[in-house]
Parts: sequence; C-alpha cells; structure tokens
Amino acid sequence: MGTTISDIAKKSGVSLATVSRVLNNSGYVKEETRNKVLETIKEMNYTPSAIARSLSKNETNTIGVIVPDITNSYFGELIKGISEVAEASDLNIVLFNTDDNLEKELKALTVIKEHRLKGVIMSPMFGENEFNSNYVNTLENLNIPIIFVVADVKYTSFNGVFVDNIKGGFDATNLLIKEGHKKVGIITGLLSSEPAMDRLMGYKKALAMNNIPIREEYIFKGDFKLSTGYDITKNVLNMEDGPTALVVCSNMMTMGAVKATFDENKKIPNDLAIVGFDKLEFLDMVGINITYMEDCPEELGKSAMYMLKEVIDNKDISEKKRLTISPTVIIKGSEKKV
Amino acid sequence: MGTTISDIAKKSGVSLATVSRVLNNSGYVKEETRNKVLETIKEMNYTPSAIARSLSKNETNTIGVIVPDITNSYFGELIKGISEVAEASDLNIVLFNTDDNLEKELKALTVIKEHRLKGVIMSPMFGENEFNSNYVNTLENLNIPIIFVVADVKYTSFNGVFVDNIKGGFDATNLLIKEGHKKVGIITGLLSSEPAMDRLMGYKKALAMNNIPIREEYIFKGDFKLSTGYDITKNVLNMEDGPTALVVCSNMMTMGAVKATFDENKKIPNDLAIVGFDKLEFLDMVGINITYMEDCPEELGKSAMYMLKEVIDNKDISEKKRLTISPTVIIKGSEKKV
Repeated sequence: MGTTISDIAKKSGVSLATVSRVLNNSGYVKEETRNKVLETIKEMNYTPSAIARSLSKNETNTIGVIVPDITNSYFGELIKGISEVAEASDLNIVLFNTDDNLEKELKALTVIKEHRLKGVIMSPMFGENEFNSNYVNTLENLNIPIIFVVADVKYTSFNGVFVDNIKGGFDATNLLIKEGHKKVGIITGLLSSEPAMDRLMGYKKALAMNNIPIREEYIFKGDFKLSTGYDITKNVLNMEDGPTALVVCSNMMTMGAVKATFDENKKIPNDLAIVGFDKLEFLDMVGINITYMEDCPEELGKSAMYMLKEVIDNKDISEKKRLTISPTVIIKGSEKKV
Repeated sequence: MGTTISDIAKKSGVSLATVSRVLNNSGYVKEETRNKVLETIKEMNYTPSAIARSLSKNETNTIGVIVPDITNSYFGELIKGISEVAEASDLNIVLFNTDDNLEKELKALTVIKEHRLKGVIMSPMFGENEFNSNYVNTLENLNIPIIFVVADVKYTSFNGVFVDNIKGGFDATNLLIKEGHKKVGIITGLLSSEPAMDRLMGYKKALAMNNIPIREEYIFKGDFKLSTGYDITKNVLNMEDGPTALVVCSNMMTMGAVKATFDENKKIPNDLAIVGFDKLEFLDMVGINITYMEDCPEELGKSAMYMLKEVIDNKDISEKKRLTISPTVIIKGSEKKV
C-alpha cells in the first residue's frame, strides 16, 4: 500500500484537512505550511490519489453504465460508443451487467448512489411485466443524472436516447407491401417490452395505411429467442393460406426463421420473404442475405453519453431531454416478391 | 451535492480526521466527541460515502478490467464471467475498451493506478510486433495486483489464466490426420501474437508426431480477419496439389473460409475439410456445422477473477500464479474425410 495523506499529515505535523487544502488548492493555508507539506509530498514520493481528490469534491470522475446482457454484441457496441465519448472527457466507466435481472439492476443503482458516481447510462431490462413502483421510486430518488438508452421504462419520462420502433415496424411492413405482398405476418418480441409493442404498432399502421385488413392469425407472439423464431416459422411454412412475408422483430428470431426455412427445404424469398431487425452480419458473412431494420447501437451510445455530459454540466435536471433515432433499412433482397 | 464529511466536521466542531475516525471506527475518539459526531451525521442525514471509506483505506472496492474489443462477444462473455465472481465479492468493475490500441492500454493502466483500484484483469492487445520495454516497465511498476487473461505479454511471466493453444493447434491437426487427411494446411493468426504462434507450433507437432513432413506452402499467414480467411481459402480451393483439409485459427477467418467454399460452389467437408477455432454458434444456428476448438471465455473470466481475489487477499505478489486451460474440441462433422 502506498503513502496516504494521513502519512503526509503526520510527517508534516499538520492536520489531514490542511494536507487536503494544499492538494486541492482550496481554502487558506499559510505559505510556510504549504511549502512544508509540498516538500513532504515530494520526499515521500506521493502521487495525489484520484480518490482523495474526489472526496474533496464529494464526487468522482466516474459514471455507471448498466446493460442487461454484456454477451450480446449489440450492447458491446453500445458501450464502445459510450466509452469513446467518455474517454475524450476523462470519464471512467463502471460497468454493471444485470443478466436481465431486476434485483441486479436495483443493486447496481444502489452501488452507483453509494459511490457518488457522476451519472448513469442505463439500458433497462426488457420484459418487466408489472408496473413496479419500487423500481420507479428508486430511479426517481437516485439524485444522480440518469440517461436511459435503447429501451424506456414504461409510464415514466426520464431523459433518454431511444429508437423509433414504431417507424421501424412501419417501414419493415411497408417495404414488404410495396414489393407486392398482401399477406404479411409478424413475429413480435415480448409484448411487455416497449420496443416490441412499438414495432407491432408500426406493423398495424402500415397495414391500415395500405388498406390491408389486420388478420390476428398473422400476428405471432415471440420472445426474442431463436427457438421461438424457428418454431413459429416452421409453423408458418406449413400453414394453409399463411403469410407470404414475415416481419421478424429480433436478430435471434430471424436466425431461427432462416434455419427453419433451411430445414423445411424452402427458399427465401421465393417461399417466404423476410425482413428482420438488428444487425445480421453473421448471416451476411456466409452469404445469406436478409433485409433488416438497423439501429446503430454505437451511435446510440455516443448520443447517450453526450446527453449525460450536458445534464451533468448544466446541473439542470428539471427539463427532460428525449432524443429518438430512426432505424434505417438495409436492403439485401429477402423482401422481394418472386 | 449532498452533505460532505467537511460539513459534518464543521457542524460538530471537530477536525476532518476525527470524523473520519468515527466513520471508520478506527483510532481513538473520546466517547463524548464520538456521540456528537454521530448525532450530527444523523441530523444532517448523511450517508457514509463509499469514496470517504475508500480514502481512509487508500483503496477502493473496485477493480479494473481491460479488453481489446468490447464489440466481440468473446470478450463480452469473458466480462460476464469476471463480473459474476466480482459481484459475489461486492467488487465493482471499471471497464476499459482499448480498440487494440497500445496507447489506450497504457492510459487505462495510468487511470487504474491513479484511482488506487484493488486490482486489474487485462486481456492485452494482440499483434504487438515489437518488444516494448516502456510497456513492460509500466506493467512491472504498477504495484497493483494484475492478472492477464486469454493472451500473455511476450517475454514476461505475470500472473494469468491462459489457454493451451499448443494443445489446441495439436488437437485440431491431429483430428484431421486421424480422419485420414494427409495434406493438412493451416491459416494462422497474426504470428506476432502468442496464441497464433502456439497454435502453429501445435500444428507442426501433430504433423511430426504422425510422420508427415511439413510443407511450407501449406502454412498460410492470416491475421484473424474474415476477408483474409476468404481470400486464402479461395486460393486453396484452386491450388494444384493443395491441402484437402484446413485448420483455421480464428472464428472470423473460419466464416471467411465457409463463405469462400460457398462462392466457389464447393462442399465442406467433401471438397475441403475444416476445423475452426472459437465459438461458431452463428454458423450452427443456420445449420452450417463446422467442427471447432473451443475455449470457454466465461470460465476464463471466472478463473481470472478468483485468481485476482487470491492475490489481493494474500498480498503475496512474489509467487507467480499461472493457470492454463485446455480447449475442447466440438465435433460437428466438417473434419471428415469423404
């Protein structure tokens, strides 16, 4: 263990508070005393500790980042974006991986509060079914700037950077209709999550805009999982009067859908047209080309970090900042009507 | 900004050091004074700050984790393993993403030192060509427990959890030979990185063990990139007297190799047998089955965190701890001789 400011204080024969004032260049210290302290610091080869500095200001130069699943490269790219901007501002990131677990999320918030972190960027877990007042209370009483990213918490209006998922669902569906598909189905995400609900809303809006009646039997309730995408698609391929095109609302479910068409010896888009969601570059790499709606998580991360800096610097937390980014469509051919 | 211990000191009419002693239950404080301080703390609704606590011990309950590429899910899984063990010990993680950049790695180490973090787990960048004495000096003078994971730093012997890549290269090659392949090639990683060199060494060892002469023209120098795997494999498929089987030393290059066989209208393993490295579940998901050597990054992360805790708790940093984990082969059929 290195030299502490207590050691410096002892050796210089002054109080801890005096050493602290010298280190932070704050408050009055006699010239003579200051020199003695500085000499001792030099003598003892003391590096001013960031901890000591942060104590004097009762804050750190560290922010917290909370993500639901660090093994998902979507969140890896989000963090990359956050950390690029944070680094340029000499801010460090304490990372919390919650495994989509509400308790872990609450614990992370407690730790963040206890450590007086400068702010939080949080991508809340998906699929929380019930409105949880304890959860919202904790968030509201955090007293630390917080920016939500990717997903919002229902029935609240915190600062955040979000994706326009209604537009995403609309554009994906509309693209298939414009190609000539009249029977378009959707595999939704978990409908307790806001992005999933929004995409479904966009889907319905696109049908309505094109005067196509909504058929409830074409709305398949998914859960973001590969196996679900697989099972539903297998089912769709064998359905009588089934959809000729599917909007599939996550990358993993799209993988499952692709695998199902392989296993059924069917072709995309000839037997089933597909528009997916989120980056599908692994499919691309092996030459399986699926059209998808992309939001760029690295950009979301950067925007969230810029927003957090703004909130921290202005200290004005009364006005809410909400930014919504539109996803873009990446055309690969799987949407075609053959 | 909340109440600080300076506020408490002022209000109680005692020194900062006394408040600190009361908060940390250390050193002598008169009963009467202690009570007064505790009363003020209650009165001012002060939550003892983790920063204040850490100052008194000149350390934090935080460790640093340095990875070269957070968008690679390999490192996401590594971090998941680290954070599971860290969380159980109430340790927080400050994350540094270095984008495979030496300067960023050095900066991360400086920040870690400045913040008096309890320890570091670091997966150093690959492909550092030159022995960098400044780099090694920084590491050696860190004075903070450090555990390397996944890759080592050449010519040093720090604590670490590593993968037995010689065995990996050997097993992959031997598997193809046992299937009946006599002409086995290899696409290496960047040969300036230790894992890549070790895999090549294992490849040569397997050939020697099976009395197969090494043919230099079957050793293809790769760089972990998809496009390189693609180009080399395309070349191999059109080579006269080329290899009938390839050991491909990374997941991305394996993707490239698979794509090349598709584009050349060739079949795996009929036209070319392949054994890859690292998880290839995305290929799996769409029904492309490639045999590969797997090391489990989540387990590596857990082991590294356990090792770091041991070093922190024992404070004995003289004896070096080095753990090597063997990769396992995941058989999928692409190694067959048809």
